[in-house]
Amino acid sequence: MACGEFSLIARYFDRVRNPRRDVEAGIGDDCALLNVPEKQTLAISTDTLVAGNHFLADIDPADLAYKALAVNLSDLAAMGADPVWLTLALTLPEVDEAWLEAFSDSLFELLGYYDMQLIGGDTTRGPLAMTLGIHGYVPAGRALKRAGAKPGDWIYVTGTPGDSAAGLAILLNQLQVVDAKDAEYLRKRHLRPTPRILQGQALRDLASAAIDLSDGLIADLGHIVKASGCGARVDVNALPRSAALSRHVAPEQALRLALSGGEDYELCFTVPELNRGALDVAIGQLGVPFTCIGQMSADVDGVSFIRDGETVTFDWKGYDHFAAP
Amino acid sequence: MACGEFSLIARYFDRVRNPRRDVEAGIGDDCALLNVPEKQTLAISTDTLVAGNHFLADIDPADLAYKALAVNLSDLAAMGADPVWLTLALTLPEVDEAWLEAFSDSLFELLGYYDMQLIGGDTTRGPLAMTLGIHGYVPAGRALKRAGAKPGDWIYVTGTPGDSAAGLAILLNQLQVVDAKDAEYLRKRHLRPTPRILQGQALRDLASAAIDLSDGLIADLGHIVKASGCGARVDVNALPRSAALSRHVAPEQALRLALSGGEDYELCFTVPELNRGALDVAIGQLGVPFTCIGQMSADVDGVSFIRDGETVTFDWKGYDHFAAP
Repeated sequence: MACGEFSLIARYFDRVRNPRRDVEAGIGDDCALLNVPEKQTLAISTDTLVAGNHFLADIDPADLAYKALAVNLSDLAAMGADPVWLTLALTLPEVDEAWLEAFSDSLFELLGYYDMQLIGGDTTRGPLAMTLGIHGYVPAGRALKRAGAKPGDWIYVTGTPGDSAAGLAILLNQLQVVDAKDAEYLRKRHLRPTPRILQGQALRDLASAAIDLSDGLIADLGHIVKASGCGARVDVNALPRSAALSRHVAPEQALRLALSGGEDYELCFTVPELNRGALDVAIGQLGVPFTCIGQMSADVDGVSFIRDGETVTFDWKGYDHFAAP
Repeated sequence: MACGEFSLIARYFDRVRNPRRDVEAGIGDDCALLNVPEKQTLAISTDTLVAGNHFLADIDPADLAYKALAVNLSDLAAMGADPVWLTLALTLPEVDEAWLEAFSDSLFELLGYYDMQLIGGDTTRGPLAMTLGIHGYVPAGRALKRAGAKPGDWIYVTGTPGDSAAGLAILLNQLQVVDAKDAEYLRKRHLRPTPRILQGQALRDLASAAIDLSDGLIADLGHIVKASGCGARVDVNALPRSAALSRHVAPEQALRLALSGGEDYELCFTVPELNRGALDVAIGQLGVPFTCIGQMSADVDGVSFIRDGETVTFDWKGYDHFAAP
């Protein structure tokens, strides 16, 4: 049977188990038609993943679908948004039905978890790549932004940054972790990061600024610093580290992974002194550790690091697709 | 100077000449924030263009940007929508500043023409490709859909389908057109198709169904037929043909280009008998020819063709990226 573009799309991606009420028309016309509820602001983000650049070419398609969506969800989390719709533009070198089935099953599982609907997209032939457009709602005026941090605000991170980069190193055979459980934990932090959607929503009225950690703490906290026009001082001794990372990676290397490894998809956010008590209640009950790692400061330029009371500098940078290697 | 991902985006794509009032935050945070006006339904479409597949690898970047946006605008036109925002995910093999300047200048020129704003995107390294996400408004309940055509409704097309495919044939040196003006006209219909935005809006309360011609009349009218559950009878003698096409392409070949050449980005729509008078007024004043080419019918399956009163069949198909060549 010739498998044309249209039947391919229809077969794997035209599934709607629980149609959303805000979707008037989904896949199947020239455009999707959507009705945004009153007093909700729409948050939109776009991410492209290219084989060999953003993911290993031999990645399990189920992991790929999960991660592609999770990475986009993380952008919504950083704004405090509630996910609603996805568009998926998928470029494939060939029609591989087993691959498509595994990919789409995994995608729809995660979409279902977040009560999201796939509302459209495109399927084209070419080198393996995909672009996801994700849409979410934030109550009007309550979105978290990168700008807004003030001197004196406390800097927090969720989870334990560095785990994802260690997981990648294991997958690339650059790091040997003999303990199977630790290795699995670290690999999973790389392949199946958890978007901090609930945390983002809980931060809506508490955080003064927020971002998700995609490129490492140096680069991403740097974005808050730049947008807010205010420096940041981070105590590297305070950086949270998972037990698995501590057991298998030397301290200096673990620090490098946390600061510049990227792909943790944890949240980094700032909280005024006045909101710290409310923060402990709001985000504390969600079961994911969150740690105060420093303070915004008018006295420093950019992101400054302190260890044992002394200023230290690192020449590690965030991941940049177009930087010279 | 090292040109990183972020400075690259900032330099060429972070331009806002006339910010839209519905854009609360555009480029520069984890998500864009948008406020949809009351009683407007959001129309969203996504299109991917891959080098060597959707465009010639040596295409002028200004033409590429124009066409990438025009093709997406055409999807909005087919719904009767008014364009508002664009997201652009651009994958580039290298940083070529002259290319980026020409591409972005052309993109912003067309965005400005339609009072649209670029609200986000992504820039990644990889084989040249791009995915555009386009957003528009339609007054609630007034969107044009593919479903809705009824037996007896008249079938129309705007413009002169086939010109774009002839223009492509010229660019590929598969068609020789000695008259320079005609050659330029046909090339331009391929490289710079006009999205029929105004026509789509004028059709909102008049057409029973609509689609844009991206894959050729056979395939695209076929989508209306399938969605509406009603056959279509097209009189091939009634198909409009440009003077340039008539002069340089034999009639049977011209017919093939019109029916299966694709990339015309004209509108094909159906109109109930009762609305034909209003149609002539509403769309007639917009300066683009529109032609009645047939009628929806309960007596035929799919799309049926008539020539000189006799039924004829064609085995040409619409363009399909995944069909066997």
